[in-house]
Amino acid sequence: MKIDNAAIVSIAREYGTPSYIYDGDQLIKNYKNLVNALPKFVDVFYALKVNPNVSLVRLLRNNGACTEVCSITEMEIALKAGSIPEDIIYLGPCKKDYELKRAISLNIYAIVVESEIELERVSNFSKELNVTTNVAIRINPDFSAEGSPWKMGGRPTHFGIEEQRAVQNFQKYLDTPNVNVKGIHVYNGTNILEATSVYENTKYILELYDKIVEKYNCKFTMVDVGGGMGIPYFTNQNPLDITEFKELMVPLFSKFHEKHPETRIIMESGRFIAGTAGYFAVTVNNIKENHGKTFLVTDGGTNCHSAAAGSGRVVKRNFPMQNISAPSNAMKQIYQVSGPLCSPDDIVGRNMELKETKVSDVLLVGFSGAYGPSSSPGLFHSHGFPAEVLMYEKKSYLIRKGDTTSDIMNKQIMVDVKHQDELILN
Amino acid sequence: MKIDNAAIVSIAREYGTPSYIYDGDQLIKNYKNLVNALPKFVDVFYALKVNPNVSLVRLLRNNGACTEVCSITEMEIALKAGSIPEDIIYLGPCKKDYELKRAISLNIYAIVVESEIELERVSNFSKELNVTTNVAIRINPDFSAEGSPWKMGGRPTHFGIEEQRAVQNFQKYLDTPNVNVKGIHVYNGTNILEATSVYENTKYILELYDKIVEKYNCKFTMVDVGGGMGIPYFTNQNPLDITEFKELMVPLFSKFHEKHPETRIIMESGRFIAGTAGYFAVTVNNIKENHGKTFLVTDGGTNCHSAAAGSGRVVKRNFPMQNISAPSNAMKQIYQVSGPLCSPDDIVGRNMELKETKVSDVLLVGFSGAYGPSSSPGLFHSHGFPAEVLMYEKKSYLIRKGDTTSDIMNKQIMVDVKHQDELILN
Repeated sequence: MKIDNAAIVSIAREYGTPSYIYDGDQLIKNYKNLVNALPKFVDVFYALKVNPNVSLVRLLRNNGACTEVCSITEMEIALKAGSIPEDIIYLGPCKKDYELKRAISLNIYAIVVESEIELERVSNFSKELNVTTNVAIRINPDFSAEGSPWKMGGRPTHFGIEEQRAVQNFQKYLDTPNVNVKGIHVYNGTNILEATSVYENTKYILELYDKIVEKYNCKFTMVDVGGGMGIPYFTNQNPLDITEFKELMVPLFSKFHEKHPETRIIMESGRFIAGTAGYFAVTVNNIKENHGKTFLVTDGGTNCHSAAAGSGRVVKRNFPMQNISAPSNAMKQIYQVSGPLCSPDDIVGRNMELKETKVSDVLLVGFSGAYGPSSSPGLFHSHGFPAEVLMYEKKSYLIRKGDTTSDIMNKQIMVDVKHQDELILN
Repeated sequence: MKIDNAAIVSIAREYGTPSYIYDGDQLIKNYKNLVNALPKFVDVFYALKVNPNVSLVRLLRNNGACTEVCSITEMEIALKAGSIPEDIIYLGPCKKDYELKRAISLNIYAIVVESEIELERVSNFSKELNVTTNVAIRINPDFSAEGSPWKMGGRPTHFGIEEQRAVQNFQKYLDTPNVNVKGIHVYNGTNILEATSVYENTKYILELYDKIVEKYNCKFTMVDVGGGMGIPYFTNQNPLDITEFKELMVPLFSKFHEKHPETRIIMESGRFIAGTAGYFAVTVNNIKENHGKTFLVTDGGTNCHSAAAGSGRVVKRNFPMQNISAPSNAMKQIYQVSGPLCSPDDIVGRNMELKETKVSDVLLVGFSGAYGPSSSPGLFHSHGFPAEVLMYEKKSYLIRKGDTTSDIMNKQIMVDVKHQDELILN
């Protein structure tokens, strides 16, 4: 983590903790690093699921990013941030009727259809609306990306249509009324750190594209090769080698582009763009010794940042963390860093080496720009979701207020059924 | 699950899914089962952390329950629900200044102090406010409850003060200015299904109370023995034997009460009271075959009910689940039940035997009254938190609206930093 400690401490104190602080300059840099490692004719679609804050989406959009959304709310955020329907794709295994109808009426670049039933629904709704809707067929390939902690291809999942079935039934898809099958979509793994793995994965998808085009002699205009480019959360991991990535991907895509010059090539990225551009700031509320260990009790844990607390992981490893308010020459010590919850699992750092820490110090968890607040149980113990702040060109902007007691209580409705009457008190 | 399927299907259709449906009659029944298994002089404190919905708290309060809170927002919910300060205790390892001050000014029954530093803070704030504040000392005992998946005693955690240290330093606590140390608090395990384990645990705490009282010749007026009574989520588990529980606990508490007639005995319970009184309803959006398995894709998964999706568990086991809209004579089949997220982990039921299911059927997950929406990442993929509905005496009441797109977007603030200006657009 290369950061301006004093600036971040002052932001944390100004906006309060727990809070997420995003580095807008780093966000753009990450996006541009990816864009520059790809040929000009490849479009990068930012995946809002990793971080849907509209200000971040707008910053990326202003720098050229397209958007990949997984719910109608993400789609509305993308539009508000300045995206245009032509630069939006919509995927996800469960699209509700009103969501599909909204996407159809917007005429977005492609609804990524995850099953034959969904294709039929899109067709029916489009017929009702008297339009032709652009779709891509999501294929669950027989191939699986190496080096991903989550293998999404070649095994039973609820995503896409199995490769063999899709290849066999594709004429039916092409013949479906009121839809225009633009091409295919494959997403095959997540947090991949090996460039060769992304390469092999992409190669497989481009060949699958060719196979279908040749078999059905159809004119596709899009291929979405997914993404899955990762970031090195843990000390035993190395970052994706972007030079190697470029050396592998440019010729691969260039060859494909020569053969299919009218096909829009889409690469998705969320974590690679946003992950290293975000920090999670907490304040130390208490320091205590317990059974030979020193605990730093902080005001934000699993409830704000469940990924860093290792929720869902068998082996818990520490995200990078610093005490950014301690003097630079402070000695280091080993700490257990907990959150505020009444759960022994609410530990964000285990045996963490930090500068000697005092109550009120600010700790900063790095690599927190992706899968932060939106994938955490922010209402646990009714603490509420944390504030979010954007730093950009040495200024800071509040981009989401932290939840207050009123925010949380106003969502609840008190019904008094003491005397079997139906008095709604709020 | 003994439920009126037709009634719940109609509630699910009326209020929409995903939604939580609470059975108020069952909630009260569970609470009374516990109260009836304890002597009259033991007070049951409902732990809001398992489910903080104000309407549920009010229903319990109207039936006599006291409240245990872990944040200032939980405290305000308890008050709104009709609790009085005398029946509120406040615990948790991280209490912020404004939270402590609010609790002090309310003069609640006891602030459960989790460390010596916190005791000092309470003392200082009380001095500022010129009051004496009631506290209990939370002790992390050398003893650990058997049969709990989370052992909270006898090992390093961020809870309480180590037993040996507390016993040694207690005079200091008693002498602390502006605080009145009412007694001790120990919470030692969670989801315990063996009555003997709760008994042994409680016995240890009552003996610890005696030990401190004898050593310091102090007059305590409260002991909080925690709780941790569980419910059997999985088929290989048996419910807590409430008759055995009563047979063990009544003589134990009676003997203690005879010796200390002026001591308020507090038992906490959250999961036991609320757990079996809640259901999570989802609608099947899609059915698909993939690599030999049949997936039911539903509109609510990890994002609404992370406990049922097994987040954080090494071995994932299925919560009880039913298809409540299928005909009663439908054949059963094996399904994989997924949520709507783009994550292969978003599986609420694995190899689940359900009645033959069609698209639009309603599935109901039982044992969902505790650690449901408030401990789930409701904003993931921007789907929003689900609606919550209370059924009581054959009527239904909306007690929390499901989040809408506007609800989610209105929390975000769009800052346009395209041209380095500071225009706030929203």
